[in-house]
Amino acid sequence: MILSLETFSPDRIIDISVTLRQGLACWPGEEYWQLESTQQIAKGGSCNLSRATMSLHMGTHVDAPWHFGEGDRTVEAIPLSQLVIGARVLDLTHVEAAIGRSDLEGKLDGIQAVLLKTSDSGRLEALEPFNRDFVHLDESAAEYLVEQNISTVGIDYLSVEGYHVENAPVHHRLLGAEVLIVEGLDLSGVEARDYLLVVLPLKIEGADGAPARAILIDSDR
Amino acid sequence: MILSLETFSPDRIIDISVTLRQGLACWPGEEYWQLESTQQIAKGGSCNLSRATMSLHMGTHVDAPWHFGEGDRTVEAIPLSQLVIGARVLDLTHVEAAIGRSDLEGKLDGIQAVLLKTSDSGRLEALEPFNRDFVHLDESAAEYLVEQNISTVGIDYLSVEGYHVENAPVHHRLLGAEVLIVEGLDLSGVEARDYLLVVLPLKIEGADGAPARAILIDSDR
Repeated sequence: MILSLETFSPDRIIDISVTLRQGLACWPGEEYWQLESTQQIAKGGSCNLSRATMSLHMGTHVDAPWHFGEGDRTVEAIPLSQLVIGARVLDLTHVEAAIGRSDLEGKLDGIQAVLLKTSDSGRLEALEPFNRDFVHLDESAAEYLVEQNISTVGIDYLSVEGYHVENAPVHHRLLGAEVLIVEGLDLSGVEARDYLLVVLPLKIEGADGAPARAILIDSDR
Repeated sequence: MILSLETFSPDRIIDISVTLRQGLACWPGEEYWQLESTQQIAKGGSCNLSRATMSLHMGTHVDAPWHFGEGDRTVEAIPLSQLVIGARVLDLTHVEAAIGRSDLEGKLDGIQAVLLKTSDSGRLEALEPFNRDFVHLDESAAEYLVEQNISTVGIDYLSVEGYHVENAPVHHRLLGAEVLIVEGLDLSGVEARDYLLVVLPLKIEGADGAPARAILIDSDR
């Protein structure tokens, strides 16, 4: 992939973030979204101003190792090299329930990051209610990602791990190896190939994760 | 600038975002920062979880046109072409009080975005108390940016406009022309030259602005 600033076209950029708004599915028990107006021109204010309250794991977001107590790295300390990185989008929309090692084998050559497009892509942006049967990674897949020295893994629903899996082995294996986890992507309109991924979480001191905006820059358009 | 994914080095990326944390200077009256733990491993939880409350104009952030009622474009609708863009960092650390047209004339050739490095760079990250005498743009400078078809302008303190300037002419002129305003950058360690700017605000539906993470990709290292 060659990006030239002189010939750089906005057509090459794809937004893979979900929109933060009322009605967006959240992890059960983590529904804190509020957007409150603090000043309004319509009511005589000099400008429109708001404040937001949110779970750090709402919508498109990243998990820091400290989220599951794997070391003390919190979100502001995630290296930029895991946030701006060559990434392969894999089409796994045929997979039901769990993505296993065999779904990934032989598909990660020459790449540092992988984004998993599943049959749940688009559900968040369509404001569907929380789906507890979302497609996720099993332990063998997490193990394979670590073996393959993958730096960053992304998925299109709210967790890389199945709903309420005991002891969270997938999170522990990935975060224990300092693999960056990106959750809540919208990959519904994205073709399966290689891109430059830029995922920029808010730089919140001491946090277990952070909401993020994520884009892909496409070399092939 | 040529970026090759094959030869892409993380050394070329510079984080120009300030860290969101207790003690970070906020616009007077807009001090809403709270980071609250909702689950802790140390207290028997299965993971560490938090929620945050913040002003949308805290730390590194963008202003949408609707912030000052200039049309109805809110932050989720800002085009990606204003967020991923060739940008020139100008060293204006010698300017006292206000940046005028003459400080910018002849310095914007061949570029779509400009980041203004002032003597206030680094104050936010150093947790200095709010400084109401920060360096800002005057009306002639705002007019010149619009004349020059600048798409995105960034500055290193909390506003492009002076403290409590009546009727906010700089905001109205820039936002009225759909110039994207980025405020609260940390340009203290950045050399004055051209970069690829990537500034990614949270995609919050209907919002007047949003906190963002911003990076520069440097072609010259």
